[in-house]
Amino acid sequence: MGQCSRVVIIGGGFAGLSAAKALARERRVSITLVDRRNHHLFQPLLYQVAMAGLSPADIAAPIRSILSKQKNVSVACGDLQRVLPEQNQVLTSFGTLQYDYLLLACGAMHSYFGHNDWEEFAPGLKTIEQATEIRRRVLEAFEKAEITTDADERRKLLTFIVVGAGPTGVELAGAIGEMSRFTLSRDFRNIDSTIARIILIEAGPRILPMFAEQLSSRAMRDLEQLGVQTWTSSRVTKIDDSGVEVSGDRIHASTVLWAAGVQASPLGQQMGFECDRQGRVLVAEDLSVPGHKNIFVAGDQCCFKSGDQPALPGVAPVAVQQGRHFASVIRADLDQKTRPSFHYFDKGQMATIGRSRAIAQVGKYRMSGFLAWVAWLVVHIYFLTGFRNRLFVILSWAWSFLTFRRGARLILTRRWRLFEEANT
Amino acid sequence: MGQCSRVVIIGGGFAGLSAAKALARERRVSITLVDRRNHHLFQPLLYQVAMAGLSPADIAAPIRSILSKQKNVSVACGDLQRVLPEQNQVLTSFGTLQYDYLLLACGAMHSYFGHNDWEEFAPGLKTIEQATEIRRRVLEAFEKAEITTDADERRKLLTFIVVGAGPTGVELAGAIGEMSRFTLSRDFRNIDSTIARIILIEAGPRILPMFAEQLSSRAMRDLEQLGVQTWTSSRVTKIDDSGVEVSGDRIHASTVLWAAGVQASPLGQQMGFECDRQGRVLVAEDLSVPGHKNIFVAGDQCCFKSGDQPALPGVAPVAVQQGRHFASVIRADLDQKTRPSFHYFDKGQMATIGRSRAIAQVGKYRMSGFLAWVAWLVVHIYFLTGFRNRLFVILSWAWSFLTFRRGARLILTRRWRLFEEANT
Repeated sequence: MGQCSRVVIIGGGFAGLSAAKALARERRVSITLVDRRNHHLFQPLLYQVAMAGLSPADIAAPIRSILSKQKNVSVACGDLQRVLPEQNQVLTSFGTLQYDYLLLACGAMHSYFGHNDWEEFAPGLKTIEQATEIRRRVLEAFEKAEITTDADERRKLLTFIVVGAGPTGVELAGAIGEMSRFTLSRDFRNIDSTIARIILIEAGPRILPMFAEQLSSRAMRDLEQLGVQTWTSSRVTKIDDSGVEVSGDRIHASTVLWAAGVQASPLGQQMGFECDRQGRVLVAEDLSVPGHKNIFVAGDQCCFKSGDQPALPGVAPVAVQQGRHFASVIRADLDQKTRPSFHYFDKGQMATIGRSRAIAQVGKYRMSGFLAWVAWLVVHIYFLTGFRNRLFVILSWAWSFLTFRRGARLILTRRWRLFEEANT
Repeated sequence: MGQCSRVVIIGGGFAGLSAAKALARERRVSITLVDRRNHHLFQPLLYQVAMAGLSPADIAAPIRSILSKQKNVSVACGDLQRVLPEQNQVLTSFGTLQYDYLLLACGAMHSYFGHNDWEEFAPGLKTIEQATEIRRRVLEAFEKAEITTDADERRKLLTFIVVGAGPTGVELAGAIGEMSRFTLSRDFRNIDSTIARIILIEAGPRILPMFAEQLSSRAMRDLEQLGVQTWTSSRVTKIDDSGVEVSGDRIHASTVLWAAGVQASPLGQQMGFECDRQGRVLVAEDLSVPGHKNIFVAGDQCCFKSGDQPALPGVAPVAVQQGRHFASVIRADLDQKTRPSFHYFDKGQMATIGRSRAIAQVGKYRMSGFLAWVAWLVVHIYFLTGFRNRLFVILSWAWSFLTFRRGARLILTRRWRLFEEANT
């Protein structure tokens, strides 16, 4: 194993970053962290960027800068192209890296269940670019409704559909409700933004199925008060530029957002590892890939099952704990001890609805309403990376809470060239 | 003139916004402000967005929200298509507007002096999209330099060229110098970011020609200390993907930024108004267009000359004062008084160089160094729109000043679709 074990981490999300940090004082390793993006993204708050409450830089920080003081890490911005397990090598867009330990933490993207053409009409929410695209669509719908003289068109523009009622879908729908009822209501002259229809469509029998039934019905009532209609047991059969089709019925809407399906990075399947239906790699008790003692998978890309329990959900705490576990396995190997098995310590889960309500569940303990929202706030601020970001997010929230305004209501295009535009 | 004079303002920049605000308590007018963007942009700080110091939302605010309490204004987001002076009408993308008074305040864009194909290789800095594009290019150059193994390529990646040494060019060059010397120096392992070459190219004999000679040479020395080479009397003859050609010599650089020329909105020329070489409309003493008593031009689109003085420069104070003057001309008309002539009250000018230096000139009074920088800070914070923005900008600056870090170091692409990308 030589002087220093070479650790390669693919992905700077929660799993990859916590793995690198957990090895901070370990002099026996030298780490290379590869990510195609230069920034770590605090995904649990991404919906707030989409809803104009926060700026992208409030919830993202350069990976390089987060790890700048940790001398045993170097960060490289590039794409993973192939893994060669026999040679212990990864090929990247900037050259070949040799590893003694490899952590795959490439995360997941949204899935349209075979209807990738729906993406154009119903963006998902995984990257900052998608968040600003959603922000653009929602704000532009109100702007266009203000100037149109056609009543049908106005109705279509003021109809917002969110597909999928997991935490992201509920948070998006709640935030649109809040925005139309409070933030925008004073700014328009011709339309009454409070008449906006927000429809949350869920294929399953209830919203937020991972929570206790009592909490999901509480969330449904809270959503209703923000003007969100919830359609459960409803399946979307088509999405196009005029709206969606739900079990054959057409609903006209100019803004459709997708929060329904998730698919792991295709890498696991490409490498021939055993995967579950969502493309997540099935791992052994120490998080290694069966048959490859030095390749590990963590985070949303990993399917970990202990006994006959269901696989762990794709949430940040799971990723963080798995990243740390990877570090402790390396330490065990270097100390020539037995590898520990991964155990998930469930700290509970929470979801927020609008500006001052949330639901939370920790084991058997349940909480809802304003107190749960305060708890949600504290937890999210606590885990946000970087002092600057925490300060700025607290201030943005305090400002929005007191004034009902939102700080990042910018409609930006994706074009920057003047003359390209002028010529077309 | 009926009950209420209809005022149409095209453009929500400094001129248009100050005109609308100056008419706030005037019950005899009803105003429509049209802009193709939903936000007012505080352009003097745009270079800080390009240099990762501020987030777009820190220096931009929705026009609708700025004017939400002013009951005599409605804001419409759309494009101006034509002005019909005979009918007193403007045609827009959302319909026809009738006016009694029209203010054209459409601003200016950068000009490549007939070489529009240079834009692809050398973006200018007028919009938020351009600022984030510049940010992406500068940060990506450092990222690529970190992973390349080719020394020539690395040298090219670490060479930054800024064309044009007016305030924007100087501020951009100084900020790149500061970023490479302080912010980034601790974050990279393979490159020494402090060896970055920054070249500021100016066709004229000195930088910042609008300032006194003593101040421009002071600025030049300050730039030098940040690693910026200044090439005066040098004309760029070609720009392509490998760099620039200066009087026949080729300099290899992957990042070239354009801060050289400005061109007013083409509207004035299209309407057959008399314009100067930069396309700015020549106006009468009351800012009206000769021959059209009820059409006015203000801001960067306006060419105002009094006597044999040179035309007023395209800076925010001129635009603000001209916007207010438009309001006072309307008041004079409504009161059946003589229209006042426009007089510019020159409050002086300033430019900042890097993190703690600036130059300022007010009449005969001159200032440079740290004190001038503090003055620059106070003036820019004071004029920034909106309490939230002021607070956030102060905090961002305080944080950057104390830590040498920058809060918005995000490399963002212009693509948001996953599956589009996967297919190409």
